[in-house]
Amino acid sequence: MTNPAYQAAVAAFTRLYRYQHLAAIAGWDQAAMMPPGGNAARGAAMAELQLLMHGLLTAPALQQALQAAAQESLSDAERASLREMKRVWQSANLLPARLVEAKSLAGSRCEHAWREQRKAGDWQGFLSNFREVVQLAREEAQLLAEASGKSRYDALLDKYEPGMSSTELERIFGDVKGWLPGLIRQVMDKQAGETLVAAQGPFAVAQQRALGVEIMGLLGFDFDAGRLDVSVHPFCGGVAEDVRITTRYRDDDFMQSMMGIVHETGHARYEQRLPRELAHLPVGQARSMGIHESQSLSFEMQLGRSPAFLSLIAPMVKKHLGEQPAFDAANLARMYSRVRPGFIRVDADELTYPAHVILRFEIERALIEGEIEAEDIPALWDEKMQAYLGVDTRGNYRDGCLQDIHWTDGSFGYFPSYTLGAMYAAQYFAAIRRSVPDLDARIAAGDLAPVMDWLDANIWSQASRWETGELVQRATGEALNPAHFRAHLEARYL
Amino acid sequence: MTNPAYQAAVAAFTRLYRYQHLAAIAGWDQAAMMPPGGNAARGAAMAELQLLMHGLLTAPALQQALQAAAQESLSDAERASLREMKRVWQSANLLPARLVEAKSLAGSRCEHAWREQRKAGDWQGFLSNFREVVQLAREEAQLLAEASGKSRYDALLDKYEPGMSSTELERIFGDVKGWLPGLIRQVMDKQAGETLVAAQGPFAVAQQRALGVEIMGLLGFDFDAGRLDVSVHPFCGGVAEDVRITTRYRDDDFMQSMMGIVHETGHARYEQRLPRELAHLPVGQARSMGIHESQSLSFEMQLGRSPAFLSLIAPMVKKHLGEQPAFDAANLARMYSRVRPGFIRVDADELTYPAHVILRFEIERALIEGEIEAEDIPALWDEKMQAYLGVDTRGNYRDGCLQDIHWTDGSFGYFPSYTLGAMYAAQYFAAIRRSVPDLDARIAAGDLAPVMDWLDANIWSQASRWETGELVQRATGEALNPAHFRAHLEARYL
Ligand SMILES: [Zn+2]
Ligand SMILES: [Zn+2]
Repeated sequence: MTNPAYQAAVAAFTRLYRYQHLAAIAGWDQAAMMPPGGNAARGAAMAELQLLMHGLLTAPALQQALQAAAQESLSDAERASLREMKRVWQSANLLPARLVEAKSLAGSRCEHAWREQRKAGDWQGFLSNFREVVQLAREEAQLLAEASGKSRYDALLDKYEPGMSSTELERIFGDVKGWLPGLIRQVMDKQAGETLVAAQGPFAVAQQRALGVEIMGLLGFDFDAGRLDVSVHPFCGGVAEDVRITTRYRDDDFMQSMMGIVHETGHARYEQRLPRELAHLPVGQARSMGIHESQSLSFEMQLGRSPAFLSLIAPMVKKHLGEQPAFDAANLARMYSRVRPGFIRVDADELTYPAHVILRFEIERALIEGEIEAEDIPALWDEKMQAYLGVDTRGNYRDGCLQDIHWTDGSFGYFPSYTLGAMYAAQYFAAIRRSVPDLDARIAAGDLAPVMDWLDANIWSQASRWETGELVQRATGEALNPAHFRAHLEARYL
Repeated sequence: MTNPAYQAAVAAFTRLYRYQHLAAIAGWDQAAMMPPGGNAARGAAMAELQLLMHGLLTAPALQQALQAAAQESLSDAERASLREMKRVWQSANLLPARLVEAKSLAGSRCEHAWREQRKAGDWQGFLSNFREVVQLAREEAQLLAEASGKSRYDALLDKYEPGMSSTELERIFGDVKGWLPGLIRQVMDKQAGETLVAAQGPFAVAQQRALGVEIMGLLGFDFDAGRLDVSVHPFCGGVAEDVRITTRYRDDDFMQSMMGIVHETGHARYEQRLPRELAHLPVGQARSMGIHESQSLSFEMQLGRSPAFLSLIAPMVKKHLGEQPAFDAANLARMYSRVRPGFIRVDADELTYPAHVILRFEIERALIEGEIEAEDIPALWDEKMQAYLGVDTRGNYRDGCLQDIHWTDGSFGYFPSYTLGAMYAAQYFAAIRRSVPDLDARIAAGDLAPVMDWLDANIWSQASRWETGELVQRATGEALNPAHFRAHLEARYL
């Protein structure tokens, strides 16, 4: 064998990939299929599998193989592969088992209690568990920071968006904060004069599903290598060879499930088009949370909510849900671009969504860096909601700082990915439009190839070959540039 | 710890159970959910899991634990548990890895080719792969026989029906051969004069499913701990805490799927009612293939096809599939007890089914013991089909000796379980009737408690606490006695 150490590492990661396959399918089943009585046995089986995967990643032989591989004569592609294997290895090896276990226990406890505390708006009750979650996340951040030389928050951010820094985020989000509140006001003034025809339900679930499936087909979802099912919290799961997306249906509203399916199909196509021959190695897997979200948001925000795309699918909506005035293309476009500042991030429209993310980024960064404490969150939350969205959340913990699951189990550093994804997506589409000036006309005519071919060539097929900055630079000719996001929003909403 | 070696064995089997959970759910998914594109990745993941389970069972530490546990002071229940752990351990350790791998390869190759060869009736082509399967099965039988002191065929039989012997089977099946052909002729003469109203399709799948779900509910299936789905080959899978049964629907026939659901529900209730606190140990798992089949056949044959039960569910059939003369209770009973000797085992009625099994038992026993060779099978098949069922299969390999999947991958010793199951079921119901003389009236009135309570107390809750002979003796007061089977058939069909 030419590079025995590299090959030994590949063999270990191949095994890991197969275990991950089982975890992904069992996880999908748990969310989409499993009856409640199966929960305890499933939990035990999944924990056993996690233990197995952790054991594989922390085995001394793998560390030796990764170290020795660095001395072998590797091709550029193999060197990139080694870089990504090392990244995964580090995330499993930098933290002592004691801390991983304590985090997991505290996170489960806090998340579990949160489900009721949120409903009751019980911030004090939440705080009693949450302080420990914060404390352990700070310990984790400290250890990761010492190993990487990054700041504590940046060390956590790196888990979801490798290569991104809070300095960079502050620059980018600072720019957004400069123009977003004004833009929101302008758009709301403009929309105040618009008439919008509401859709009349009920919408039968079977019909909504048929509509979703037809749109998935239009978007190139490969049903030979994936499925659409139902779960309480929609997600894209499964494995690259067999992608499982979910949605949820309400019979009084088709909009959320329809656009949710477009969103998840974006995630799904990324997975389905990753280079199959590298599927078992980190270098062949999705680049980051932000890049993953840039695919779903390319589909949902750039393509899905565009008047061109909505005019393309309006006949499908009518075919499956019946003719009604609300389904005319122009009205659909107005429905899907309605701007309404509100309390809840997951219900937010495209324009106000970044404000929710920036607020969370600023709070979690300060929290992890030790500039604030957990008890300071509500006041900061109120202040920022007022400043960015003009919304008063005082005393409303339920729809304020208790609304998200992310912090409950200590996933600090995740939120920025959402808006980074939206910005990357805007930057991709700016690049596509440069080479395809009549893009909207082509989309409206049903020709999605300019979009799909570009994403395929520049993102999907590239997997984790390049670090994020280089991926975006190679794809669009420049580093992340929020000006494209602003230009997109102004073009669509003004 | 009181019994450290026993506890160490329990810990290993607990881990095994969790891996088996993942294998069961991934296996169910593969049959019921997975799109075809997922097959290769799933196969690799399942093989990795098999390797893991085999490694766990063949680890020297487990052997030592099992040996040392025998010297510890164990309760009777623990001793039974140790006996069952040893049984599982032996099946994984008696054969050299080389033979296991060769069997698996030859079996896959033979089974894969058989799928086309069967359609083409290509016995010669089949033979070219099958000879190796037989050769390896004989090697396996030889090794198992040397270790156990049993005959070669008995050593294979023991994998599916521990404690059963070919001497015993010859006695029992010999008895059946004495009266079955005559009984079949008598019943056919009787039925020749009966009129039977055929059901008029089509039967919408959604309605068939709703009917099946209602019957499952009537039979006590716990939907909080299981599901009903669709697969090409119906089965009962999943895990005891989350049982997944499947069926298949044809829109021109409701009979197969309806009774198939009753059958699989019998398997499912056994699993769902096994003692939950022992679910992770072999002693808490199903006793044998024959006992498992005795549950599905208690449900399908003893209960499901009885006039009393069919009168109970006739209103449900009408409710879901619409009123028609065929759905009158008496007609349903005639439809579900129609006797027609035919080529195909899986399509056989209750009365002719044992003939198909006895034929296979006689051939496979002789084959494994070396009394015949693979090329002798077709002639024997024809001769026995003629003798037992009066059916001429000459030259029809497709509907003759090529019809079953079992032999293609070397599962010799499995077939007797089907008829043993039918006999156990008849013996259980004879016992139930002794204590509940008005059983049929109670069933017809919707009171299934006498059946369910008896099965629960005598079979389900007992799991593998007793070896099969003792289980049946304790439950019914006697050893396996085929007279009950004959009496049941004569009572129902004459
Ligand atoms: Zn997403
Ligand atoms: Zn069965």
